[in-house]
Amino acid sequence: MVAVTKMKDPQISELLNFAHTLADLAAGAIMPYFRRRIAVTNKMSDGGFDPVTSADRAAERAIRKAIAATYPEHGIIGEEFAAAPGSGRYHWLIDPIDGTRAFITGSPLWGTLIGLTRDGQPLVGVMSQPFTGERFWADTRRGRWRGPDGKTRTLRTRSCPKLSEAVMTSTHPDLFTGADAQAFAALKSRVRMTRFGGDCYGYCMLATGFVDLVVEAGLKPYDVMALIPIIQSAGGVITTWDGKPATDGGRIVAAGDRGLHAEALAVLSARR
Amino acid sequence: MVAVTKMKDPQISELLNFAHTLADLAAGAIMPYFRRRIAVTNKMSDGGFDPVTSADRAAERAIRKAIAATYPEHGIIGEEFAAAPGSGRYHWLIDPIDGTRAFITGSPLWGTLIGLTRDGQPLVGVMSQPFTGERFWADTRRGRWRGPDGKTRTLRTRSCPKLSEAVMTSTHPDLFTGADAQAFAALKSRVRMTRFGGDCYGYCMLATGFVDLVVEAGLKPYDVMALIPIIQSAGGVITTWDGKPATDGGRIVAAGDRGLHAEALAVLSARR
Repeated sequence: MVAVTKMKDPQISELLNFAHTLADLAAGAIMPYFRRRIAVTNKMSDGGFDPVTSADRAAERAIRKAIAATYPEHGIIGEEFAAAPGSGRYHWLIDPIDGTRAFITGSPLWGTLIGLTRDGQPLVGVMSQPFTGERFWADTRRGRWRGPDGKTRTLRTRSCPKLSEAVMTSTHPDLFTGADAQAFAALKSRVRMTRFGGDCYGYCMLATGFVDLVVEAGLKPYDVMALIPIIQSAGGVITTWDGKPATDGGRIVAAGDRGLHAEALAVLSARR
Repeated sequence: MVAVTKMKDPQISELLNFAHTLADLAAGAIMPYFRRRIAVTNKMSDGGFDPVTSADRAAERAIRKAIAATYPEHGIIGEEFAAAPGSGRYHWLIDPIDGTRAFITGSPLWGTLIGLTRDGQPLVGVMSQPFTGERFWADTRRGRWRGPDGKTRTLRTRSCPKLSEAVMTSTHPDLFTGADAQAFAALKSRVRMTRFGGDCYGYCMLATGFVDLVVEAGLKPYDVMALIPIIQSAGGVITTWDGKPATDGGRIVAAGDRGLHAEALAVLSARR
């Protein structure tokens, strides 16, 4: 009989603690650049405006180094550097500054996103806002958040089954083009109030029960992976506009209330 | 010879210190309500949505009581209660929560605005964001801001003479209707980047040098009075779209760069 040595899976609590450590490392790398007059380089060759700050790259480097040192078999997918495929069940999806445009305007509505998948499924998520001192985190069972006062509270979405009573957020009206823009406009005309600006911050306000609906388009997997456990553990639903898993990014709709999510999907699909 | 007793004008530094005290009082009244699930009442009888929180009213009461006790001859103009005309040269213009819609969605992009005029001219302004621990303040000569780290820095706008390089903020695209919407769209198509959401926060990011242009409409005098010294002391310009003083509110354009302000006015007036 041949002994098969199987690498023991880490405890989820250990992985969540490590995700917090990564968020701390990112904060240390990023904060020296926030509200400093820094150069904004343009990474798109076609002349479009997609700022990447030195902070973004410094944070991703620090995060990648720590993962490689602690869990060398884990894969890493980030915004700034090439993916490291890894050799195991675990993959980290990281966006050091989700909301770079908010960042460069001095707004605190950006965050560091740290997501971890096991066999492709979201396992742990952390959103960190180091300027305000806020952090939101979850595993598949429960979510928590902490504000500037240092108190830890449970994430819980609020009940809001009707579109006519819903508060919706989206990062920018220009996220949507063509038929998607028409679908978004139809939804916007049905809700009580829409606020723009927010990136990951809007999803966290949904998980704390102050926003009912977040609708976006053009997201990458690392823009959304960390947010999936944060929203699901709080009682919310997050999918694509077609009702498919949000794990691949794209057009995303998150709702704090299951009935509201169904209503939003119906409006978004009727116009396409 | 009859002796004429003239009330001595307070020092500006004394008035600025008092404005900070009012901001502290407002913070104490407001913060117990922020990120709490509170009732949002509707003050508009026509069914429009204009939330007023208990926090707003509690803060304005605390501010009015302090002004009446310390400077009984000063006039008071606020959002929530009837104006107190006063009997002297000084008037306080206060908005306890500028950005109530941001507030109810859990976003920190709201602020307490405390403005003081002497003979109708802006003299002192304070913007306080108690959740993040930020404060921005100015008299007619110099402006300062303080962040969560407690360090005090000088307000200074940045140079940006060209619309094509400018970052613009505005609270919401739906602020503008009819010809104003066309004028705003024309300006938006000329700038490098536009971010929505912000209310008073956008003006403060302009005064710190991270935003170049703020364009809004429908402002009340208490929405803008505190921001005038903050922007002007930082080197910026703030007027109506017609180039008139911003003190009466209405359609407002603020720029960190004098040349940019002129360019923005030209675009806004060409379309009307």
